[in-house]
Amino acid sequence: MKNRIVELFKIKYPLIQAGMIWNSGWKLASAVSNAGGLGLIGAGSMYPDVLREHIQKCKKATNFPFGVNVPMLYPNIEEIMQIIVDEEVKIVFTSAGNPKTWTPFLQQHGIKVVHVVSSVKFAVKSEQAGVDAVVAEGFEAGGHNGREETTTFTLIPMVKEKVSIPVIAAGGIAAGRGMLAAMVLGADAVQIGSRFVASNEASSHINFKNEVVKTEDGDTHLTLKELAPVRLIKNNFFNELQNLYQQKPTLEQLKEKLGRARAKKGMFEGDLENGELEIGQIAGLIHEIKPAAKIVTDIIKEFQWVKNTMNKDLF
Amino acid sequence: MKNRIVELFKIKYPLIQAGMIWNSGWKLASAVSNAGGLGLIGAGSMYPDVLREHIQKCKKATNFPFGVNVPMLYPNIEEIMQIIVDEEVKIVFTSAGNPKTWTPFLQQHGIKVVHVVSSVKFAVKSEQAGVDAVVAEGFEAGGHNGREETTTFTLIPMVKEKVSIPVIAAGGIAAGRGMLAAMVLGADAVQIGSRFVASNEASSHINFKNEVVKTEDGDTHLTLKELAPVRLIKNNFFNELQNLYQQKPTLEQLKEKLGRARAKKGMFEGDLENGELEIGQIAGLIHEIKPAAKIVTDIIKEFQWVKNTMNKDLF
Repeated sequence: MKNRIVELFKIKYPLIQAGMIWNSGWKLASAVSNAGGLGLIGAGSMYPDVLREHIQKCKKATNFPFGVNVPMLYPNIEEIMQIIVDEEVKIVFTSAGNPKTWTPFLQQHGIKVVHVVSSVKFAVKSEQAGVDAVVAEGFEAGGHNGREETTTFTLIPMVKEKVSIPVIAAGGIAAGRGMLAAMVLGADAVQIGSRFVASNEASSHINFKNEVVKTEDGDTHLTLKELAPVRLIKNNFFNELQNLYQQKPTLEQLKEKLGRARAKKGMFEGDLENGELEIGQIAGLIHEIKPAAKIVTDIIKEFQWVKNTMNKDLF
Repeated sequence: MKNRIVELFKIKYPLIQAGMIWNSGWKLASAVSNAGGLGLIGAGSMYPDVLREHIQKCKKATNFPFGVNVPMLYPNIEEIMQIIVDEEVKIVFTSAGNPKTWTPFLQQHGIKVVHVVSSVKFAVKSEQAGVDAVVAEGFEAGGHNGREETTTFTLIPMVKEKVSIPVIAAGGIAAGRGMLAAMVLGADAVQIGSRFVASNEASSHINFKNEVVKTEDGDTHLTLKELAPVRLIKNNFFNELQNLYQQKPTLEQLKEKLGRARAKKGMFEGDLENGELEIGQIAGLIHEIKPAAKIVTDIIKEFQWVKNTMNKDLF
């Protein structure tokens, strides 16, 4: 198997589980890594001590590589980065910030650094900052999206044209066909979020997992573009936000409406009406909760089946 | 070669050139059909007599199948449909309306009918209306988009899951990799618009073609969602529209701002500042104006090359 991402991370499959707040702790990350992918712990919703505990438990639960996703606007960012170095994490995915700030520090400690971008411009800036790879994330993703609204289908080939480091596609991928399509477009690997939310090992509330399974085409919408754009399931909180938008709110009013613990309330505590429920458009293709290892093997099986039968199905 | 769309239309490649207002007259459609794809005349910007002339010229310019794209909200729709029947057009793509209205009439005259949709729901309704195939068009497209904002990457597999008629992918495709990726996701064929705008044979103004070549990631935006959503290059007219949106305009104010001939002014007359310039996000991947036949053969060449080398490049 010859693939730059597989070699960079020393993993079996070029399949990365996205580090998602309130969803991806040590259980999910280690399950994915044990299945041959790369599991990521989502530090964005963890206090420093909680993150340290998750890293330590993850190391005990898997002998395979895993990583940590760190949104750099995190208030305790220095402490977080020091914990990552102290605990000898080997792979860090950074997002929401300037990759120049932390890349040299992490790399000096032998850590591979990947930065998440949603536009060609920031992919180029990330390469200049010296990162080992970029995640190019399309508009359809559930996580933090760019204001350009560039979709996975167009972002991947445009980024590939402008950078020479490996490109990991994210946004809209939940099955083997999507993984193969992303790699046909030029990606070296894929990062998958929503599909792993509906896994047994995700730390999110069962109500939220069930809601993801029920979500169909048209049930999500990208909003809060003025703060950090997120794609939300249209629930009562979402509708209240839209009503607020009718009144041309200030940034402060939006922040006040969002409050401090909306995402926790929705995804971790399972309040489907008043919580923030972040998920990608591809939730419409997710119909059951499965063990993370089964998700990985099902995706790889479909990926290989489509690749191998393609010459028969297409001209 | 075994492919449902190739058999349905009796064409060589499952590659369709989108029928685009002010861009695709008989010259472009016949050039694409002569090169082995399916060319479409865009009736949306033509008076009935002009359309008749384009159909007649197209029949003289090619012996291969071609079609006509008809937005069904067209004011002279009865006259248009009668011309299509009288001139013995064999293929019609309908959009912007209910597929139940015209599908039986056209099919009774031996015409294959394809309807353009942007959501799973309307794909299912189109199949129920008896169309021969659907175009599933993603958010990244330049043409008329749906309010759900579903992207090509997620729309294709979700539509494939719910309909059994052939699915033609549109939105974000301008090269062989994109064509192959769409077919990996489940599409039976692709419809390509933006790439053919930057062709010698497109009827649009050279200023517009040059502007498409210059367009980069982030230079377009989907707007006018309250009327019929369109993706526009951010020029002076676009900025004026955004300023108007700041004032919470009524539908009437939006219509007044748009005026009657904005699209013609921009795309056909080449007024890059005050005209409406419709194009897809994938314009960022288009770097030169080429003959339509060269566009077709370059796409097919890359498509076949990627498909045949895939086993070496991926695991």
